[in-house]
Amino acid sequence: MKKVVKFGGSSLASARQFKKVGDIIRADKTRRYVVPSAPGKRNSKDEKVTDMLYTCYEAASTGGAYKKILERIKERYQEIIDGLDLNLNLDHEFDTIEQNFVKGIGRDYAASRGEYLNGIVMANYLGYEFIDSAEVIFFDENGNFESELTNKELSERLEHVERAVIPGFYGSKHDGTIKTFSRGGSDVTGSIVARAIHADLYENWTDVSGFLVADPRIVEDPAVIETITYKELRELSYMGAGVLHEDAIFPVRREGIPINIRNTNKPEDKGTLIVESTCRKPHYTITGIAGKKGFCAINIEKAMMNAEVGFGRKVLQVFEKYGISFEHMPSGIDTMTIMVHQSEFEEYEQSVIAGIHRAVEPDSVELEADLALIAVVGRGMKATRGTAGRIFSALAHARVNVKMIDQGSSELNIIIGVKNADFETAIKAIYDIFILAEI
Amino acid sequence: MKKVVKFGGSSLASARQFKKVGDIIRADKTRRYVVPSAPGKRNSKDEKVTDMLYTCYEAASTGGAYKKILERIKERYQEIIDGLDLNLNLDHEFDTIEQNFVKGIGRDYAASRGEYLNGIVMANYLGYEFIDSAEVIFFDENGNFESELTNKELSERLEHVERAVIPGFYGSKHDGTIKTFSRGGSDVTGSIVARAIHADLYENWTDVSGFLVADPRIVEDPAVIETITYKELRELSYMGAGVLHEDAIFPVRREGIPINIRNTNKPEDKGTLIVESTCRKPHYTITGIAGKKGFCAINIEKAMMNAEVGFGRKVLQVFEKYGISFEHMPSGIDTMTIMVHQSEFEEYEQSVIAGIHRAVEPDSVELEADLALIAVVGRGMKATRGTAGRIFSALAHARVNVKMIDQGSSELNIIIGVKNADFETAIKAIYDIFILAEI
Repeated sequence: MKKVVKFGGSSLASARQFKKVGDIIRADKTRRYVVPSAPGKRNSKDEKVTDMLYTCYEAASTGGAYKKILERIKERYQEIIDGLDLNLNLDHEFDTIEQNFVKGIGRDYAASRGEYLNGIVMANYLGYEFIDSAEVIFFDENGNFESELTNKELSERLEHVERAVIPGFYGSKHDGTIKTFSRGGSDVTGSIVARAIHADLYENWTDVSGFLVADPRIVEDPAVIETITYKELRELSYMGAGVLHEDAIFPVRREGIPINIRNTNKPEDKGTLIVESTCRKPHYTITGIAGKKGFCAINIEKAMMNAEVGFGRKVLQVFEKYGISFEHMPSGIDTMTIMVHQSEFEEYEQSVIAGIHRAVEPDSVELEADLALIAVVGRGMKATRGTAGRIFSALAHARVNVKMIDQGSSELNIIIGVKNADFETAIKAIYDIFILAEI
Repeated sequence: MKKVVKFGGSSLASARQFKKVGDIIRADKTRRYVVPSAPGKRNSKDEKVTDMLYTCYEAASTGGAYKKILERIKERYQEIIDGLDLNLNLDHEFDTIEQNFVKGIGRDYAASRGEYLNGIVMANYLGYEFIDSAEVIFFDENGNFESELTNKELSERLEHVERAVIPGFYGSKHDGTIKTFSRGGSDVTGSIVARAIHADLYENWTDVSGFLVADPRIVEDPAVIETITYKELRELSYMGAGVLHEDAIFPVRREGIPINIRNTNKPEDKGTLIVESTCRKPHYTITGIAGKKGFCAINIEKAMMNAEVGFGRKVLQVFEKYGISFEHMPSGIDTMTIMVHQSEFEEYEQSVIAGIHRAVEPDSVELEADLALIAVVGRGMKATRGTAGRIFSALAHARVNVKMIDQGSSELNIIIGVKNADFETAIKAIYDIFILAEI
C-alpha cells in the first residue's frame, strides 16, 4: 500500500499548519511520498510566498530594491523552522536564490523556489529524503511536459526510496532551466508522482472537506460529494465548479488511481473520492449542480428544415468560421437553437446572422441574450426514474422559466437554460429538492 | 365573405353522402367554391373509384379485358345520379374516357377522371358552374406545379363566377396532358382555389371532426384540437400525425387564410381551425402529442470535446456524407448524442462509426437502437410554467425511462426520447396528465 499526499499552500502556511500535516502523515505509514506547495496565506490579509517571490524577482532582476522583501520571505520560512524546532539553516539556499535573482535567471525559477524551500523544510521535519523536482520532472525545449520520460526517470529514482518529499509545481528543461506548470500545478506534480510509483491512492489535502454539491456562494453550507467519477467531475468543473487543476486528472486517471480530496484542518472528514468508475450508489440521486451565466441563444426557424440534409452542418460552419464554439444545439422540427458564450459571440453577432442567412436561408433568426446554463450531473440519474420530473417541478415551483433543455442518452447530465436573473434561484431549487428533501 | 369547401372521398362515396354535402353547402351561402374528390369507399370492403380507374386503365391500355370494371365504375356514378334524382347522363364522358384509355393516354389522366366526373355530378346537383381543372391549374413540362401562373389564370377565371365546382387532384401541362398532384392532392387544389379567390376560409370536409390531440390507436377517444397554428401542425404532422396533405398548407398560409377541418358526418362539430397565429388561449396547455418509433442514438464521448471548435460540424459532416439527416443532437460537456432514423442509418452504420473516428478521434462511440421520439407541442407551453415538470413527473409515474430530452428556446415543443417499448405508455401518460387531469 502506497499513498502520495499533496498539501496545498494553506495547509503549509505556518508552523501550526505544518504540525497538522505532520500528524496526518505520521498517522498513516503508507503516506510515503509527500508533495508540498509553497506556504500560502495564514489569514485573509496575508501574502502567498509565491507572490512575494515574483515581486522580489521583478525587483532584483531589474536592478531594483529587493532586500526587504527577500528578508520577509526568509522570515516566513524561519517562523516555520523555529515553530517546528528544526535544526535547519536555509542561508546557503537563500544565497544561491539571491544570486540567481540578480542574474535574472527566469520567472519560473523564482516562482518555483517557494515549493523548493518548503520541500527542504518538510523533508527535514518528517525525516524523509528530499528530491529536487528539477532532477525528475522534465519539459522539452518548447516547455511542454514530457510525460513518458518523466514517468520513466521518476519511477527509477523512487524505486528504492522508501519515503520522500518531492516539491510541487516545477521541473526542468534538458538544459537545466527551471520550468513550472501553470498556477496550481502542485496538483499535477502529485498526480505525476502517484502514477510513477503506482500509488494506491493520491490524497490531495486542501482547506476544504471535498467537492461541494453546489456553489457555497449560492447554496448555504452545501453537502459534500462523497464519491465522484472523473466524468462527472469534468462535467461539473467545465461549468465552473473548479477545485482541482485539470491537468492533474490525466496522469492518475490513466492508471486508475483514485484521488481523495481531504481537509488538513478537519482530517476526520472523509472528503471526496474521485474514481474512474464505481458500483457504489451515490448518497443522493444527483452528484452535483454547476452552472455559468452569460450565454446567448440563436433561434433559427425554417419550414421543412428537417428535410434538408446538411442544414445543421451548414449552420455550425458559420459559427466555426468566426471561431465560436457552440455549447448546445437543441432542435425541434422546424426550429433549431444554438447556445453560445455571449462574450465570444457579441463581436461577430451580425456577421454570424448574415452568414446563417446566406448558408441556409432561414425563415427567421432571433437572438436571446443573458441566459445561464445549469448542468445537473449524476451517475445515479440513469438508474432513478423521475429525475427530470423532479428538476422541472422544482423549477416550476420556484417560478423559474425553462428556456432550454438538453439531455443525451448518456443520461449523466441534464443541461438547463434559464435567464441569468433566475440562475441562483434555479440552483437553489434543484439543490433543495434533491439534497434537502432527499427524494 | 367567400369560402372554399373541399370534400374528401368518403364524403362523396354515395348519394346519401352527397345529400349531406348538399345540405352543408346550402346551409351557408358563402360556400361558393366547391372542390370534390372522387367517390371513396362506402364501407371498409368497398373500392375507391380512383383505384378502379387505375385497374381499368391498366387493362385497357395493354389490350386486356376492361369492360367489366368500366361498367362497375359507371354504376358507382349512376347510383349517385339516381339517388340524387338528377337529370344527367355521363355516357358521352365515359365514351371519351374509354377511347382515351384504350389509346393509353396516361395514368394521370386515368386517375383524374374520378374527380372530373364527380365534379360534373356535383355541379349539376348544386346548380353551380363546372370548371375543368385542366383549364385553370398548370404544370410545367417537367411536371412541377406552376403556382404563380395558376394563381393568375384561376383568379381571372373565377373573378366573374359566383359559384363553381372545380374538381380536385389534377391540372394540365401546357400541351394539354393531364397531370395529378400526389395522392390526396385534392387538399392542394382546395388550397390553390382559396388563394386565388382570396377566400376568408378554406373548409376541408373529411370523415373526422378535426385533428386529435393524440393518436386514437394509442389513446382512447382523444380530444379534438380546437385551434392549431401552422407551426404546431407542422411539428405534429412531421411526427406522424398526418391528416392534411403537406403541400396544401403553403398556398393558404402565404395568404393568411385559415383552414377548417370539418366532419361531413357531424356538421355540428366545429372541427379544427388551422391559423397562422392566434391570441386565443388554447383549451389545454399542450396542443398535441405525436411521435414515431424506429430511431437510433449514436453517443459520442470525448474528453474536452467542448474546447474543440468544429467538433459538432465534423460529426454532422460524416452523417451528411451518407445522406443521413439527423433529427436531434443533444449534448453534455464531453458527450454528444445524434438521433437518426434507424432505417436510414442501418445500411451505413459501420461506415458512419468509422467516419466519426477518423473525423474527431472520439474516446468512444456507442449505439442505442429501438428508440422512439415523442413531440409534445403547444404554443401554450411558453406561457405556462411547469410544463416540463408535469411531463417528466407523469413519465416517471408511468415507469418510463427518459433517454433524451430536447427543448429549444422557441418553447413550442419538447422532444422526448424513450424506448420503442415505452412509446405508447409514454404518450398515454402525457395525454392523461394534460387532457384528462386538465392541469
